[in-house]
Amino acid sequence: MTVRVGVIMGSQSDWETMKHACDMLEELGVAYEKKVVSAHRTPDLMFEYAESAIERGLQVIIAGAGGAAHLPGMVAAKTELPVIGVPVKTSTLNGMDSLLSIVQMPGGIPVATVAIGHAGATNAGLLAAQILGAFDPELQAKVKARRERIKQTVLESSDNL
Amino acid sequence: MTVRVGVIMGSQSDWETMKHACDMLEELGVAYEKKVVSAHRTPDLMFEYAESAIERGLQVIIAGAGGAAHLPGMVAAKTELPVIGVPVKTSTLNGMDSLLSIVQMPGGIPVATVAIGHAGATNAGLLAAQILGAFDPELQAKVKARRERIKQTVLESSDNL
Amino acid sequence: MTVRVGVIMGSQSDWETMKHACDMLEELGVAYEKKVVSAHRTPDLMFEYAESAIERGLQVIIAGAGGAAHLPGMVAAKTELPVIGVPVKTSTLNGMDSLLSIVQMPGGIPVATVAIGHAGATNAGLLAAQILGAFDPELQAKVKARRERIKQTVLESSDNL
Amino acid sequence: MTVRVGVIMGSQSDWETMKHACDMLEELGVAYEKKVVSAHRTPDLMFEYAESAIERGLQVIIAGAGGAAHLPGMVAAKTELPVIGVPVKTSTLNGMDSLLSIVQMPGGIPVATVAIGHAGATNAGLLAAQILGAFDPELQAKVKARRERIKQTVLESSDNL
Amino acid sequence: MTVRVGVIMGSQSDWETMKHACDMLEELGVAYEKKVVSAHRTPDLMFEYAESAIERGLQVIIAGAGGAAHLPGMVAAKTELPVIGVPVKTSTLNGMDSLLSIVQMPGGIPVATVAIGHAGATNAGLLAAQILGAFDPELQAKVKARRERIKQTVLESSDNL
Amino acid sequence: MTVRVGVIMGSQSDWETMKHACDMLEELGVAYEKKVVSAHRTPDLMFEYAESAIERGLQVIIAGAGGAAHLPGMVAAKTELPVIGVPVKTSTLNGMDSLLSIVQMPGGIPVATVAIGHAGATNAGLLAAQILGAFDPELQAKVKARRERIKQTVLESSDNL
Amino acid sequence: MTVRVGVIMGSQSDWETMKHACDMLEELGVAYEKKVVSAHRTPDLMFEYAESAIERGLQVIIAGAGGAAHLPGMVAAKTELPVIGVPVKTSTLNGMDSLLSIVQMPGGIPVATVAIGHAGATNAGLLAAQILGAFDPELQAKVKARRERIKQTVLESSDNL
Amino acid sequence: MTVRVGVIMGSQSDWETMKHACDMLEELGVAYEKKVVSAHRTPDLMFEYAESAIERGLQVIIAGAGGAAHLPGMVAAKTELPVIGVPVKTSTLNGMDSLLSIVQMPGGIPVATVAIGHAGATNAGLLAAQILGAFDPELQAKVKARRERIKQTVLESSDNL
Repeated sequence: MTVRVGVIMGSQSDWETMKHACDMLEELGVAYEKKVVSAHRTPDLMFEYAESAIERGLQVIIAGAGGAAHLPGMVAAKTELPVIGVPVKTSTLNGMDSLLSIVQMPGGIPVATVAIGHAGATNAGLLAAQILGAFDPELQAKVKARRERIKQTVLESSDNL
Repeated sequence: MTVRVGVIMGSQSDWETMKHACDMLEELGVAYEKKVVSAHRTPDLMFEYAESAIERGLQVIIAGAGGAAHLPGMVAAKTELPVIGVPVKTSTLNGMDSLLSIVQMPGGIPVATVAIGHAGATNAGLLAAQILGAFDPELQAKVKARRERIKQTVLESSDNL
Repeated sequence: MTVRVGVIMGSQSDWETMKHACDMLEELGVAYEKKVVSAHRTPDLMFEYAESAIERGLQVIIAGAGGAAHLPGMVAAKTELPVIGVPVKTSTLNGMDSLLSIVQMPGGIPVATVAIGHAGATNAGLLAAQILGAFDPELQAKVKARRERIKQTVLESSDNL
Repeated sequence: MTVRVGVIMGSQSDWETMKHACDMLEELGVAYEKKVVSAHRTPDLMFEYAESAIERGLQVIIAGAGGAAHLPGMVAAKTELPVIGVPVKTSTLNGMDSLLSIVQMPGGIPVATVAIGHAGATNAGLLAAQILGAFDPELQAKVKARRERIKQTVLESSDNL
Repeated sequence: MTVRVGVIMGSQSDWETMKHACDMLEELGVAYEKKVVSAHRTPDLMFEYAESAIERGLQVIIAGAGGAAHLPGMVAAKTELPVIGVPVKTSTLNGMDSLLSIVQMPGGIPVATVAIGHAGATNAGLLAAQILGAFDPELQAKVKARRERIKQTVLESSDNL
Repeated sequence: MTVRVGVIMGSQSDWETMKHACDMLEELGVAYEKKVVSAHRTPDLMFEYAESAIERGLQVIIAGAGGAAHLPGMVAAKTELPVIGVPVKTSTLNGMDSLLSIVQMPGGIPVATVAIGHAGATNAGLLAAQILGAFDPELQAKVKARRERIKQTVLESSDNL
Repeated sequence: MTVRVGVIMGSQSDWETMKHACDMLEELGVAYEKKVVSAHRTPDLMFEYAESAIERGLQVIIAGAGGAAHLPGMVAAKTELPVIGVPVKTSTLNGMDSLLSIVQMPGGIPVATVAIGHAGATNAGLLAAQILGAFDPELQAKVKARRERIKQTVLESSDNL
Repeated sequence: MTVRVGVIMGSQSDWETMKHACDMLEELGVAYEKKVVSAHRTPDLMFEYAESAIERGLQVIIAGAGGAAHLPGMVAAKTELPVIGVPVKTSTLNGMDSLLSIVQMPGGIPVATVAIGHAGATNAGLLAAQILGAFDPELQAKVKARRERIKQTVLESSDNL
């Protein structure tokens, strides 16, 4: 199965957050690869990763980082693929720094930013699937079916109050 | 030309911001439609718009709103298409309220959030084109060519310091 | 006893907060119902709930949610009843996101917002009682008596310093 | 016509904001009174105003203030009526100080807080009408009719983009 | 010994913070009284306390409160004595709400605000002593001697790195 | 008349704010001196000023500064007099930086902080008068009379709504 | 004269801020070069600039950028020279986004961050001179002399109050 | 070996953070001294330390402090050496107060500010080494070698996902 989504993160410690993106992609049957790519500690690798993404067949990149989170924006600067940015929660500013560093991109280079932390990583996986699903009715149907399942769970949860 | 992108906004006053998204789509030759759809004042229209988006052939929705900006998230709750959210700058909190209301979505329903204000609207148009471009080499090439033009402008701008 | 207050929340996990609203309603003898209604995961249920609230005899709705907390504002958009919004504390931004998403409603659709977290939920129950009490002297008297009891507790608490 | 709503504000300079609450009450035909009552400069007047509100026939109080905005909360401490608080925008912190001072009330004394500034004042008037409307079908119908009118305005505004 | 400083707090739970003010007053030999006085739950007591403070011989009041912390500002509105406000740390917004509610007083009624939490309470005790010390050389000398002791502790602490 | 209050500020540009403190002192007939003393550009002068304040007969120091506003805290570190800090509004962060730099003093060295900007400066003058007034019945009476005048202004201002 | 300091900025519009850094370098006689280098629009140029900086003889780099300001951090990732980051004020978040994106670098790659806006740019020039001055007594003496001049200006400015 | 870097901190409790700066200096073989120097509790020592730094042979000073963190800025006011400021995380505002107090210096006296907390302290050590390394090829080579080692760690860490 061709790898369609690249999941990268700035540090191994981001994995606790970013695995939620991978879990979602697996749940929806989207082939992906995962890798630690640091904007600051492996800048050349980052550029090579971004530059080769299209020719390697990727269609969406998910990038998670915390603090002065430059990874999503710099990858976005080096590829025409849509890049989804996940702000990882930080111990000092709770991820507000990560959020602003990722979302406040200048006109010309967008990053599709999601929520801070675990929920954001989950949603990054879903958003990648929804992007692919806009051209893949089967995948779109899987997203729809998942929503239906979740809806049932919510409906039943009132019984637990 | 089939309309592929829907650009909606919560109020006519958001147009000053959201026209930058439309300008970008026009520059890149992406067919779009534009409409005022208010989450709070026309909630039923909002739901109909979102629910019918896929069957009407849309592939991406761009939604801009300010303050308690519910439009992007509620549209996202009613369609499996990728939804891009543009936080409109507000007179009181400068759009920080808009940003948090749009980006902090719970796990299950993502909104692809861009920067506050004009730069964000421009990038929403670009992001839509990059999403479509992942399946449309010609459009992807246009995005690439635009980046090349912008690069030249930057390179020349040092002469003006 | 006719149910006069509807207490809804975006997720089962909000119950820990929202039970304080129910406790207060019980303490004051106000009949209420409680339900999980998610703006993003059960949007249609949310609209049905809000649209039918008046005819079902509700007079006040209390809605709690966290993050991009769209539930109170969207319910308010679909009913002419007063809607009280409780910002649930979030793990990343401590509920500042919930607060801004709930309180910063545009002109035309108000949400009566209370404090973040437990104290806010308690006060949501009280506020509902005070709203009903403006037309129900017996209930107003109960609120007054409760205040008197609390006052005594405060007066005595100096002895514990 | 009996005065049902009291609109008070901490300073004459708050009138620019608070007149929007009065405009809304007039539009909906709700009788009200208006007064400058300062928590810090006329504390005794404030207490008398709040203490006598019920016997004078008021059913809702709207209180606007900026900065360390103590007026809504202190009035709420002295009456069992529902009190709506309007955070007035400030020149230094844009009303974030007003918002937190009004909304973060301790458990026991709620203030129904609305948005910062003009939109909040408009919504304070509407919220008062919705509270009264829960017991006054005619007024509730007026609120509904107003919403319908606004909806039409939104629907037509797309033509102006 | 005449009581010169009144230490009040909005709730018994603030004692954990406010005892640091009392500890400092004891260390410096300043006579004080302590009491729970809630702006919202015992507003009349609060006014009586403030109004009678001068005639009872108090020269400084220290008031601690959290959230929509109205106690210091309302006491200041009812006495010409200097009032020191201590923002108590809150579980949701870490005391930023307390700080803004206390410090952002309008022109006309000042509150001498100190830091959030324990350090602030300690400093409230010290500030009261420094105010009294401006007219009491013996007390001023005690403050000076305390500083000298603290300085020695700092100088020696380098050995522990 | 002996100078009892020293009003200092970090830069000549702070005068626009700090003159409100001086105006108040003049209105209340409190003798004061004023001076530009910069923590960063004239550190030695600052230390001399603070060290000699008591022997020169000062009883209160008012210090205004903006940004990394070190002046009030450093002066407080070098004198046992009560020091009132005025956070000057800044062009970038609106004085939030000034406020936190002044108020968040560590345990041991208090600064009596007032509101950001003009209102804060006015209140700094008043607070100085209230501190002196605790030992000067005539001055305390002037503060009381001023409050009475202001109260009348507020009472009459309702006629202008 | 060998160019010792490189002054770069993310966009021509940053020049209004960054010229203050250049003015300071000129005042102190430090040879510098200036250039627009955009992290997002000219990423390859940015890497080349940073990689070649040492061999070209630069000893300090000053980089200014606004919003998701990645330029200083990415340049720092590609050179062992000290990099000074200037957060440019933004129209939406006043430069708080720029500040956090620049200063919150992960362990391993520091950026020497200065204040937001003009004052920060001025100080970036000074800091570069102080860094060079630690190895260049003549330049250090110039910094010292400049401080002495500024001190005189401050001392005289009290006459203008 | 001549001591080239002075590491100072406002309190012994800052050592837990600041030891990371010392660890880095040791790892890179840079001679340093460490000392508790409090701006508020030992102001005279602070001035002596700063004033004598150049003649004692120091070339860089690293200063860490929390809250109203005046140490870095005041030391910078008393020496022409480059001063690196480390904002120590605080229990109330997470170090946002420390950051603003350190970074928002007025034009004329720069502080080279790094990230809040441990990462910032580590980077302060590195930044000092990079400043010295601009004039010391051997030290610059050590910094480069360290980066290479870190890069290898990152590259290998993908295997642990």
